[in-house]
Amino acid sequence: MEKKNFKFSSASTDLVTGASFSQLSKYSDKSASILITDEHIYDAHKTKFRGWNTIILKPGEEYKIQGTADSIIDQLIEFEADRKTTLVGIGGGVVTDITGYVAAVYMRGIRFGFVPTSVLGLVDASIGGKNGIDVKMYKNMVGVIRQPSFILHDLAFLKSLPERQWRNGFAEIIKHACIMDAAMFRELEKNDLAFYMKNKKGLSDLIRRNAMLKIKLVQKDEFENGDRKLLNFGHTLGHALENQYELMHGEAISIGMMAAAHFSRELNGFNQAARIAGILDRYGLPAYGHFDVNKIMPVLKMDKKRERKTLSYILLEKIGKAVIRNLELKTIDKFIRSLS
Amino acid sequence: MEKKNFKFSSASTDLVTGASFSQLSKYSDKSASILITDEHIYDAHKTKFRGWNTIILKPGEEYKIQGTADSIIDQLIEFEADRKTTLVGIGGGVVTDITGYVAAVYMRGIRFGFVPTSVLGLVDASIGGKNGIDVKMYKNMVGVIRQPSFILHDLAFLKSLPERQWRNGFAEIIKHACIMDAAMFRELEKNDLAFYMKNKKGLSDLIRRNAMLKIKLVQKDEFENGDRKLLNFGHTLGHALENQYELMHGEAISIGMMAAAHFSRELNGFNQAARIAGILDRYGLPAYGHFDVNKIMPVLKMDKKRERKTLSYILLEKIGKAVIRNLELKTIDKFIRSLS
Repeated sequence: MEKKNFKFSSASTDLVTGASFSQLSKYSDKSASILITDEHIYDAHKTKFRGWNTIILKPGEEYKIQGTADSIIDQLIEFEADRKTTLVGIGGGVVTDITGYVAAVYMRGIRFGFVPTSVLGLVDASIGGKNGIDVKMYKNMVGVIRQPSFILHDLAFLKSLPERQWRNGFAEIIKHACIMDAAMFRELEKNDLAFYMKNKKGLSDLIRRNAMLKIKLVQKDEFENGDRKLLNFGHTLGHALENQYELMHGEAISIGMMAAAHFSRELNGFNQAARIAGILDRYGLPAYGHFDVNKIMPVLKMDKKRERKTLSYILLEKIGKAVIRNLELKTIDKFIRSLS
Repeated sequence: MEKKNFKFSSASTDLVTGASFSQLSKYSDKSASILITDEHIYDAHKTKFRGWNTIILKPGEEYKIQGTADSIIDQLIEFEADRKTTLVGIGGGVVTDITGYVAAVYMRGIRFGFVPTSVLGLVDASIGGKNGIDVKMYKNMVGVIRQPSFILHDLAFLKSLPERQWRNGFAEIIKHACIMDAAMFRELEKNDLAFYMKNKKGLSDLIRRNAMLKIKLVQKDEFENGDRKLLNFGHTLGHALENQYELMHGEAISIGMMAAAHFSRELNGFNQAARIAGILDRYGLPAYGHFDVNKIMPVLKMDKKRERKTLSYILLEKIGKAVIRNLELKTIDKFIRSLS
């Protein structure tokens, strides 16, 4: 077990790696905690929840909506949760996003922490304090930025993770490699998903490395005025696709990353799009998808990174180095039409 | 017109007194603003809204709920509001509370400002960054603390304010006098509501004085760890009564203040409860009300100031000086039973 503390503007986060769920009570007093998880996690790990007040959500992105937040709030009132209550989200990105959001607004904000149970949760969603819900097909349209008090890694939860979810998480690992870690990109090119699924040490090192990459980047730019935007690589087109085509997040951003790689070639002289295609294939992720531009553009236009007629788009200069470019919506429209 | 700037932890607020609505475009670019108001204000001041994108809400506390926030968010998406959009709440406390809340969570936070149109809004609700919604009978159960970029006072809006709403606002003025301004309490004892309703200068001075009292107190303790709690004088019982008995906020907290005055006599040797009763009567506010303790206590127990079995309760030492006391829930229960 290793604990590191990261300070943010108005809170600090303990990142506890190599831990076990049984240590949770060190970070959150059992009598003053309410756990939030989903049916899949709860059914697969029932005994772990014994003795904890627990709210169980229906699983899946389609429940990452205000109605679910409303129902959690009703249950918090039934539990008589007060300002000394800690909410602990135990699950993938959907569970931790909605837990952080409810904790940020219940009684104008109570303490919260996460136990991410998916690869995507461990390396990405649980880190950085972005939380929230989707509104119709618009991803994360409502939420706030507020940091968890702790993030506890217990990789034993991965035993029950379906393979499609493993691939889903590796999409964000590949993203991190693309935008800021060429050495990790080369490591990923040498290995494959099967290697990490059976190699405990390789996996835990990779997860820890990715969690640290993200948390350090967020620490430098918590409110996304600069470099944090790089994490949106693949996400502009990805988010527009995700909820309309019922893709998993990782699948959608893989298509988005591949598109951004081509866009980077056109605008930035980037010449390694083939390596991106190769690594996506290596980890069982789609590089291309069929979609209707006329359905995509209205959603893409509502991207949170839009300001009036331009949108900040993340492009690659080379593997391991991304840049932020403000592009006209019509330039993006034209490019995406040329793709499909 | 006078503009003062108040800095808070992560934002600053321009308080613009003696202003006119026509100056709004100085603080919020017309092409990048969306106004939020209610049917009463809109119908009484239609021409003012010409040329502004406006969302019109149903009036009243019963619409200060998540469903209204959801509907505002849908309309913001239709307006294609982005992170450069400013929301301006024009109305009483319900409108400004919900506007601030939506602005805090839409796209994880956009700029917002207020034009309070009621006495209560001018002296209290628009100030201090607390925003949110009610959940069932629980007042302000969900929300965040986030400061508006500007508050613009145009007292012309008061022309359409019903008299019951004037009394409603004076309850908060009396509260400010009770907890921190004995001189103002004496001034209020000398005058009455009719005086302020016809005396423009007296009214604008009083409103400005109260707005400044509150904003300075909030500035010292934005997140309510100490003295800001004093503003909750009368609000613990008041909030428990308000939504269950369909009282106006000012009426409910008047009953709450009177109860707290009696409680202060018992616990603090406070001996001026009669003056509190007198001033409430002078401004047409109820000092007592019939209620069912068994209906009240479960709601009161969910007060945001509760921590486990105790609750911080605001008592008076003398007129103009309040103190915070942590009381056992059972002490409060016993006292409230003795009242009714």
